[in-house]
Amino acid sequence: MPKGFSKDEMHAIKAKLIIKGKELISKYGYKKFGIRDLTAEVGIANGMFYKFFSSKEDFFYFIVNEEKEVIRKKINVGLLKYKNEPINALKSFYLIIMTELHSNPIMEAILLKNEYSPIVSKMTEEELLEEREKSLQPIMDLANYWQENGLVKEDIDINIVFASLRSLVMLWFHRKEIGEDTYPQVIDFLIERICEHVKLQGDVI
Amino acid sequence: MPKGFSKDEMHAIKAKLIIKGKELISKYGYKKFGIRDLTAEVGIANGMFYKFFSSKEDFFYFIVNEEKEVIRKKINVGLLKYKNEPINALKSFYLIIMTELHSNPIMEAILLKNEYSPIVSKMTEEELLEEREKSLQPIMDLANYWQENGLVKEDIDINIVFASLRSLVMLWFHRKEIGEDTYPQVIDFLIERICEHVKLQGDVI
Repeated sequence: MPKGFSKDEMHAIKAKLIIKGKELISKYGYKKFGIRDLTAEVGIANGMFYKFFSSKEDFFYFIVNEEKEVIRKKINVGLLKYKNEPINALKSFYLIIMTELHSNPIMEAILLKNEYSPIVSKMTEEELLEEREKSLQPIMDLANYWQENGLVKEDIDINIVFASLRSLVMLWFHRKEIGEDTYPQVIDFLIERICEHVKLQGDVI
Repeated sequence: MPKGFSKDEMHAIKAKLIIKGKELISKYGYKKFGIRDLTAEVGIANGMFYKFFSSKEDFFYFIVNEEKEVIRKKINVGLLKYKNEPINALKSFYLIIMTELHSNPIMEAILLKNEYSPIVSKMTEEELLEEREKSLQPIMDLANYWQENGLVKEDIDINIVFASLRSLVMLWFHRKEIGEDTYPQVIDFLIERICEHVKLQGDVI
């Protein structure tokens, strides 16, 4: 293993590993992605990878978490467009998640290769809870703003409203079973039902 | 391979393979279930299995389809209890599917071992369509009866109503992601929303 890299050089190598790693995962997904290919691309010895990450799995989680953070921010920005239009915000919530997930090359690769469920199944209950909280906190702030300003019905549980919309995203994995034609109809129908529940008398959805 | 089995003996062997196969699959799921164990239990040569089924996969599909047929019948019987109570029928639809799936030892084994999605992913669009039609036909007959007798709103698309309820079953696979506590609340909430849409003015849900 090469010795004597400066701190700056180490930083640069790590940054390169991440950039090249993202490229390779976008191309091959998780299973077919190899550390040897990555270190070869970056031009370092294979063993040096382990100065930065403890395993391929650890590296992969790091990358996926970075991408999820990017996606979360985009979702929040997307929603803020509808700060004063709760029904449009709710209708967009599902759509923004789907669009951002599928326009992100890393998430798209993982989703299409069915490599997302195995990631989730390895996460602990605490990690998943933390993820959900990170995702839902800015949305809850928005929902509180709506309730304080009388923009939505008072007696609704907005947590469950958002949790339900978020759950619909997972039906994407079952689109074949639901039926490719029926699937978008089911999604539209359920989103309409949720919005119908939230809207104030007189609102048009 | 032993020769000279009569037709009746062959029938008896096939029946034994199916019975013992169901026991073993309930116990081990698909991956860990082996044809050698099965033929040993039945007391026949290993090669003889292939007189009846072309592969382990073929055998497994046969078993799973038999179980699905049993479950479908139970769902239909369960729904007929609510022939004149559409809202109760709809509310029960999801619950009956879940109960029957999880009280069936073979389906339960496959579900808990995450062996259900790989089965579905190998099925063709035609096979899946046939499955859906088998599942939904008796329910559509019931729905037509409701519409003819003015028991539900006239202008609703009852196909999508049932397809949506059926889709909710698939969220079970994502209960960890949704959150073990939130998951049942999301299901209840979405079922309520669907029923709210179908009910006649004045119906209580």
